[in-house]
Amino acid sequence: MRGMENASLAALMTPAALVDLERVEANLQRVSRYTREHGLRWRPHTKTHKTAELTALQLAAGAVGATVATPREAEVMATVTPDILFAYPPVGAARLAKLLSLPARTKLTVALDSPESLAALSRAAGQAGRDIGVLVELDLGMRRVGVETPEQAVALARAIQTSPALTWRGVIFYPGHVRAPLHQQAEAVREQNTRLGAFLEALARAQLKPEVVSGGSTPMLWRSHEVKGLTEIRPGINVLNDRNTASIGACAWDDCAFSVLATVVSTAVPGQVVIDAGSKALAKEEGLAPEGGYGALLDRPDIVVRNVSEEHGLLDVSAMSWRPRVGDLVRVVPNHVCASVNLHERLHVLRGGTVTDTWAVAARGW
Amino acid sequence: MRGMENASLAALMTPAALVDLERVEANLQRVSRYTREHGLRWRPHTKTHKTAELTALQLAAGAVGATVATPREAEVMATVTPDILFAYPPVGAARLAKLLSLPARTKLTVALDSPESLAALSRAAGQAGRDIGVLVELDLGMRRVGVETPEQAVALARAIQTSPALTWRGVIFYPGHVRAPLHQQAEAVREQNTRLGAFLEALARAQLKPEVVSGGSTPMLWRSHEVKGLTEIRPGINVLNDRNTASIGACAWDDCAFSVLATVVSTAVPGQVVIDAGSKALAKEEGLAPEGGYGALLDRPDIVVRNVSEEHGLLDVSAMSWRPRVGDLVRVVPNHVCASVNLHERLHVLRGGTVTDTWAVAARGW
Repeated sequence: MRGMENASLAALMTPAALVDLERVEANLQRVSRYTREHGLRWRPHTKTHKTAELTALQLAAGAVGATVATPREAEVMATVTPDILFAYPPVGAARLAKLLSLPARTKLTVALDSPESLAALSRAAGQAGRDIGVLVELDLGMRRVGVETPEQAVALARAIQTSPALTWRGVIFYPGHVRAPLHQQAEAVREQNTRLGAFLEALARAQLKPEVVSGGSTPMLWRSHEVKGLTEIRPGINVLNDRNTASIGACAWDDCAFSVLATVVSTAVPGQVVIDAGSKALAKEEGLAPEGGYGALLDRPDIVVRNVSEEHGLLDVSAMSWRPRVGDLVRVVPNHVCASVNLHERLHVLRGGTVTDTWAVAARGW
Repeated sequence: MRGMENASLAALMTPAALVDLERVEANLQRVSRYTREHGLRWRPHTKTHKTAELTALQLAAGAVGATVATPREAEVMATVTPDILFAYPPVGAARLAKLLSLPARTKLTVALDSPESLAALSRAAGQAGRDIGVLVELDLGMRRVGVETPEQAVALARAIQTSPALTWRGVIFYPGHVRAPLHQQAEAVREQNTRLGAFLEALARAQLKPEVVSGGSTPMLWRSHEVKGLTEIRPGINVLNDRNTASIGACAWDDCAFSVLATVVSTAVPGQVVIDAGSKALAKEEGLAPEGGYGALLDRPDIVVRNVSEEHGLLDVSAMSWRPRVGDLVRVVPNHVCASVNLHERLHVLRGGTVTDTWAVAARGW
């Protein structure tokens, strides 16, 4: 494999998570340019990388703050930005307590979809002496969280307005059900506009003017400007990308900035190469690539990790002439970068193909 | 849910990994009795729980030492046992260096299947001034690692015997491809006996007498005594069990000692309940249960985690009358306990339904 003679890679214990900094920078510039061009605020979801250092790079490239899903992510990202969106229902005493003990300088906004979570948040924020911004979570078709009807959205926004210690700021949604290739998303955009439009019209009729309309995901990133009324997007994966994202054309293969360095540990079974990156390094997530498998080699995406057990990844090489030796190194791009990063304690940062830094994946856990 | 009013559970940040100590003890007694009855040595694979405390309980119940797959697991388990089996190819300079820096008192045995890994291990052990026991890894049909033919096994055992700093101790295999229900394993046992028999006969003909014949897995655990020549078994999952293991009848549902405590965070979509245990708490591993999904509720296994995203688990309750409220707690038994434990920093230990201790999952990573 190209570049695999690199001494700084050969010294690493494998499996090891690698981040290619030049590719990260190119990915950041691309989204930064796109959001500036279209007047969208960019608030990346930091669950993808869970590292303060990558959030800092995103902020330096123009991000307005961080999106998080867990209190731990909020704590870690609050060390580099004063502007945190907690895009997860604020339910449970421990979750609320940890959220409300963020530094006083942190401007915290929370998404919610129920009167129960609203009441608990208002009570806890009041006791903590904080003012918290609140967004009403809308379901635009994913059917995971979010209110289903415009009437519910209006009622919840009004209830927020009259809740102590809270300020209604707008609405939020996540089009996570859209996984179609980029060029087939016209229908998804139309549906999003229809559903979002109904919510926004009902709010307008009720004299409720959202300051924030927050949406966006990596698969639909480059069509965000076609969604009417949107003020902000929250792509996560885009900074690192992965095999799924490349499979649907939302990035090029060469935009993949994350890979797992692995060692060939066995070639005992003919036609097969076993590497030391399995489900505990790559994650065992079925992917969107038509070829199946759990990842593919960075330098040869036609070579697929066909199966994984916990510490083994199996490459089927029966149909090709490539035969690595025990001890050789390879780099694997996993199907789903968020799931893979979450399995690693640290990211080894490459510049010019050499390890120049190590970042803690500090926001793992809750 | 029964027992969910428990104050010590309500205080936990969710999702939280729980271990029911009474069930652990019953699971340990069962395997301890079985292995004593059949004269098998019991060397549990500690990759399942990655905690020194659970290894200590296994040793107290009669385990002869620990099986590990990573240097980190070896380091952690070496704090509680002097007898470590590294059941993974010892390939790569960093892996070898970490292995060979285990305490001098640690009796280390290593499994391998190639002349390349043998040469590297011999060289490194010699430099470190250690004597390492070596097992030849056999493939009995899983087709992952392990030599394929009796001739290869004989050649490798002989090569080990003449390698400096190494002692040949026997053979090892893993029947991880057998996932059939316990009562349908007669054919698998027959196949294992045929294949293992061929290896053992070839070794005997070559005057090579293995002191150790190490096999066993949780799915085939209770048929281990039917495998001729076996001296030792290495079940991992059995101490905690999971939904897959119950699905194939290798444990009862009430033997499941591990669960993930989760909070209901949204009921906004009719017929659906969203909990805060998703793929980052349960692992997104397809299971063996005919009902599908990624886990089931401990107290109501008919309620299945139908889908997961990173921090959300979706329970489909459309066909039942059960309707929990936002803020309620549930406990989920995941499909694959090893993958779920690996996502948690700590295990909360329950005795009599109350949290009495917290154990670090200290052996995560490599």
